[in-house]
Amino acid sequence: MLDTLVILAPGLLGGSVAMAARARGVARRIVIWARRPEVRLKLAAQPWCDGVADRPEDAVAEASLVVLAAPVDKIVELCRTIAPHLPDGAVVTDVGSVKGDICRQGQHLLGQRAHFVGAHPMAGSEKTGWEHGSPDLFARRTCFVTPLPETDAEATALVVRFWADLGSEVTSLHPDQHDEIVAHISHLPQAIATTLGTFLAGRHGSWRNFAGGGLRDTTRIAASDASMWIEIFQHNRDEVLRALRQYQDELQGFHAALANRDWPEVRARLERGKAWRDGFRP
Amino acid sequence: MLDTLVILAPGLLGGSVAMAARARGVARRIVIWARRPEVRLKLAAQPWCDGVADRPEDAVAEASLVVLAAPVDKIVELCRTIAPHLPDGAVVTDVGSVKGDICRQGQHLLGQRAHFVGAHPMAGSEKTGWEHGSPDLFARRTCFVTPLPETDAEATALVVRFWADLGSEVTSLHPDQHDEIVAHISHLPQAIATTLGTFLAGRHGSWRNFAGGGLRDTTRIAASDASMWIEIFQHNRDEVLRALRQYQDELQGFHAALANRDWPEVRARLERGKAWRDGFRP
Repeated sequence: MLDTLVILAPGLLGGSVAMAARARGVARRIVIWARRPEVRLKLAAQPWCDGVADRPEDAVAEASLVVLAAPVDKIVELCRTIAPHLPDGAVVTDVGSVKGDICRQGQHLLGQRAHFVGAHPMAGSEKTGWEHGSPDLFARRTCFVTPLPETDAEATALVVRFWADLGSEVTSLHPDQHDEIVAHISHLPQAIATTLGTFLAGRHGSWRNFAGGGLRDTTRIAASDASMWIEIFQHNRDEVLRALRQYQDELQGFHAALANRDWPEVRARLERGKAWRDGFRP
Repeated sequence: MLDTLVILAPGLLGGSVAMAARARGVARRIVIWARRPEVRLKLAAQPWCDGVADRPEDAVAEASLVVLAAPVDKIVELCRTIAPHLPDGAVVTDVGSVKGDICRQGQHLLGQRAHFVGAHPMAGSEKTGWEHGSPDLFARRTCFVTPLPETDAEATALVVRFWADLGSEVTSLHPDQHDEIVAHISHLPQAIATTLGTFLAGRHGSWRNFAGGGLRDTTRIAASDASMWIEIFQHNRDEVLRALRQYQDELQGFHAALANRDWPEVRARLERGKAWRDGFRP
């Protein structure tokens, strides 16, 4: 069991970390910092919060493990703020959707005295805010843990166990490989869904009222928070561009098959897509 | 209440029509024909089936309303088969996902003695077969009813009432306008989801195991029946090509904004997509 778990800047994910940690007995004590004082007041009243701090550097004074739950843009800044105040040997992880830059900067800022081990739980919602969190948000979901080759092995093991204890299925891999994978399975689908939304908004917005479950599901994530996603696209631009270009080629292949009345090819694509989707775990 | 409702070739939709009609007291008697004798045996044992017929032309002998529930490719053929055997004034509707051709041919085949009024309930599932049907499948879902300008007004009113009685929200419009709309809100999303599936299958198929809810929802319909969809793409090819080309342009716009680091434009697209998606009825 961790002694003191510190969560900085909790949103949906950070709140869920606190709830899951309390529900599963992962930490003796949970300390939280949030930027706005009125939010700290509300947090202090939650059963999964044992204390709030007015400043991030105060929050981490006795930390065993710190979770940086801020948006991607703010994680490095927060890491810089707390670095001089961390106890020796403290471990810091995060929940950012992009990992390469963050992990390199975290490693650089903490050096050898404390340890940065990036993480990215593949859980979330089109909703935001810790009020929408859930102690089961991570259950049976992948959590990527992304140590650099030089990252302390014990710190990595601690972070892997932490996310596993919250219910995640942990996969550890290099931050750059992470960024390539999520460009394909998360950032590309967001670009596709957003674009279906902007396209249909520009035709007849009212057509959405006729839609069956297909359009509804295909575009659900178009409702996601724009401010969160602009940061993700900024931080993972190169990988997303690569995946998007290749997807556009694949879509042009579908278009060509349809235009050429190449029905065996259209059928082969429908069947290949179905076989892939049928292979999802339930 | 209808006297005799006849359902020919029930799959998921046809089975659900029978279940909903029985649950809601829409018809006194429900008669069904299915191609395979062993399926007719099973259907005869269902509480929502009052009789089965060995041939479609026998099934319709006393029909007030006939529902052609066959796949798109078979609807016109079935209509031709039953045309000489329909009672005077009988009304025929269908559930096909494409309407232009079917409605013109239906009108031509039935002429003035009986009446063809096409329909397309925007309900379904990636599952197939009447065993997966539900009496609530149509509840609060759009059903398009697509009379031609020359279609008998009383027959149209009867078909509109029928689908409304099954729980649908009926919208009536010209078959060609229907085909344009569904190309955008149903057939295009299918092409997009299928293509995301074939693209990711060709990268690392195993990455799907890491996916969160976003990829899962965005690609759910990729698991749909390939045989059903090849017919839809064949019958609505021109409209789908038009919608797909325009979607490709929209996606290229997103790509260009990202490539140019035009963050205000990327943000504007994320916000426009969100506003559109937030406007869905719950």
